[in-house]
Amino acid sequence: MRVLILGGDGYLGWPTAMNLSVHGHEVAVCDNYLRRRLCREQDSEALFEPPNLHQRARRWAEVSGHEVAVRIGDLCDWAFIDALFAEFQPEAVVHYAEQPSAPYSMKDRHTATVTFQNNLMATFNVIQAMKAHVPDAHLVKLGTMGEYGTPNIDIEEGFLEIEHKGRTGKFLFPRAAGSLYHTTKVLDTDLLWFYVRMWGLTVTDLMQGPVYGLETDENEGHPDLYPFLNYDEIFGTVLNRFVVQAVAGYPLTVYGKGGQTRGYLNIRDTLQCIRLAIESPAPKGELRIFNQFTETFSVNQLAEIVRASGERLGLDVEVKSLPNPRKEMEEHYYNPTHTGLMELGLEPNLLTDAVIDRLMRAVMEHRDAIDHDRIFRGVKW
Amino acid sequence: MRVLILGGDGYLGWPTAMNLSVHGHEVAVCDNYLRRRLCREQDSEALFEPPNLHQRARRWAEVSGHEVAVRIGDLCDWAFIDALFAEFQPEAVVHYAEQPSAPYSMKDRHTATVTFQNNLMATFNVIQAMKAHVPDAHLVKLGTMGEYGTPNIDIEEGFLEIEHKGRTGKFLFPRAAGSLYHTTKVLDTDLLWFYVRMWGLTVTDLMQGPVYGLETDENEGHPDLYPFLNYDEIFGTVLNRFVVQAVAGYPLTVYGKGGQTRGYLNIRDTLQCIRLAIESPAPKGELRIFNQFTETFSVNQLAEIVRASGERLGLDVEVKSLPNPRKEMEEHYYNPTHTGLMELGLEPNLLTDAVIDRLMRAVMEHRDAIDHDRIFRGVKW
Repeated sequence: MRVLILGGDGYLGWPTAMNLSVHGHEVAVCDNYLRRRLCREQDSEALFEPPNLHQRARRWAEVSGHEVAVRIGDLCDWAFIDALFAEFQPEAVVHYAEQPSAPYSMKDRHTATVTFQNNLMATFNVIQAMKAHVPDAHLVKLGTMGEYGTPNIDIEEGFLEIEHKGRTGKFLFPRAAGSLYHTTKVLDTDLLWFYVRMWGLTVTDLMQGPVYGLETDENEGHPDLYPFLNYDEIFGTVLNRFVVQAVAGYPLTVYGKGGQTRGYLNIRDTLQCIRLAIESPAPKGELRIFNQFTETFSVNQLAEIVRASGERLGLDVEVKSLPNPRKEMEEHYYNPTHTGLMELGLEPNLLTDAVIDRLMRAVMEHRDAIDHDRIFRGVKW
Repeated sequence: MRVLILGGDGYLGWPTAMNLSVHGHEVAVCDNYLRRRLCREQDSEALFEPPNLHQRARRWAEVSGHEVAVRIGDLCDWAFIDALFAEFQPEAVVHYAEQPSAPYSMKDRHTATVTFQNNLMATFNVIQAMKAHVPDAHLVKLGTMGEYGTPNIDIEEGFLEIEHKGRTGKFLFPRAAGSLYHTTKVLDTDLLWFYVRMWGLTVTDLMQGPVYGLETDENEGHPDLYPFLNYDEIFGTVLNRFVVQAVAGYPLTVYGKGGQTRGYLNIRDTLQCIRLAIESPAPKGELRIFNQFTETFSVNQLAEIVRASGERLGLDVEVKSLPNPRKEMEEHYYNPTHTGLMELGLEPNLLTDAVIDRLMRAVMEHRDAIDHDRIFRGVKW
């Protein structure tokens, strides 16, 4: 299948490109290096700087024999995205192309504006480009479990049957996100749902939890094909951050009571989920929503997992609670469904001792590159 | 109270300015004439061209003795809105400043982009400007009943208590709008709800139905203070359009079966509602939502009301069903609550024979100005 990956330079974008190309798909990636630029601006660069997309594609072709086409440009620029879709005529589009950091989106007015404009206009233009060039293609959009927030009721997969005063209806599951970044994804879902109903677009919206990990089947043994590993407060996700903190001898930064519970998944499972969604597309003209994670942990549980791994590897890991810089519930009900991707065939890579120890060891090889000043920044909201 | 009206040149903006100034408020209006420009671009100008905002403000000062400050600029331009809020320090902000046409938003990619960018960025910048300058001010935002769509359950005022698998929660009422314009207002509500929760903004979001009418207490006898009356398919709302069609001898354009039911209100009641919302503000840090309409009609009922009025006034009014150019239900359940504004003291001006006849007579004075080519345009979605 011809697959166009938007945001192909990202933490998940490049690993997805390699994975899909190995599995027989014709892959093109597009990016404008926004994330690299924002990380530099915030002095929050990743643990190591991956080669640029053209270099990665050449290296991947040497290693695997698979070609990945590279196009550099901004999806908010209609002339660029119009030409991109006209040229590539994708059968499936994977849309990762968003500013992905909650703290960045909450830092100040400028960073909020960048997030809001980029994420909304990218999604809007993707919809318009699909309508113009490939109205029957399948859009696989990365949403987030954060769209739902932490409601007091069980979280279903995207939709909810509601009974009210003796009548019933089926609606998008109510959403109340905890950052502007997450809220842009709520707005994306609203917009996609509208154009699915109006134009019969075919969309899978994947409500993904925080991802951890570095290695995939494709990049094992090839560190120059590893994705970004951000460990800073702004662009790092919690488990990756904790691992780097443990290796650096920096106390694990638990916010408040640490009872914040989310659904997590291994980067290998992100790749499985994307491929399953592409190879078993949503029914034509429908919005299909999956909750994309494999197991739930509280922040305290993650800290304990990392501490225990450190102990096995001879590291002395301290855990420290900080006053919570975010407005969020520190103890709450959390019971999200996640059966849709399992039914498609997802075989979870759970967070075993072996998995966390291997990630810790990979990070230990970069111990000297860790900049302690990047770890805590105190972005408050 | 110091009130800043955003979109002060519009159909409702200018009448609101006059009304609030009569009732003792210190009023400033802001507009960038976007609607006038779009109407000209679409060859869809109103029945008569009102004077510009500076001229209207001077005329109003002559007539009433009340000063209304005028600022011209684009709310999507941060430098402009920043200076506007810094200068005026409003205690209440009325936000009408959006591209208001559903057909315009669905016409083509360009018009969709204008709608999406303008409406979302205006609301985003209003939120940021309030945070920066007047975090305790009250934002009165114009939403639309169209945010809800036509669900199969009773429509409550903004929020819904949901019971699911034995647990309960209170959520925004689910929404599924019928045009991109209406969808931008869904996104506005999501964004406002987020910043209310995060920053404690104080917001009243008014889910308004289609408005009809021309005269208010302030402009009676002063046609140069009348608002726009658009009668074209793109910028005209249904009852105003039907009245002009009746006067022009153009068959009333009912789309499909004509069972589409909505909640309507007189322009005089819009002014009452805005004033009630300002003078009885939402509780600090809360999002208050009211459904703003006074009575529901199907399109067939509106056509019959206009036909009967024509008969009383000696006009021969024909009603004609056209194939529906829109994707919408032509027969559906519709039972929206609207008690909040009544409890604040709203005294409805219902659509009596006298009211419709008076509107017909006002339009008859402009009969020669009606351009038949503007009435039907065939914007499909």
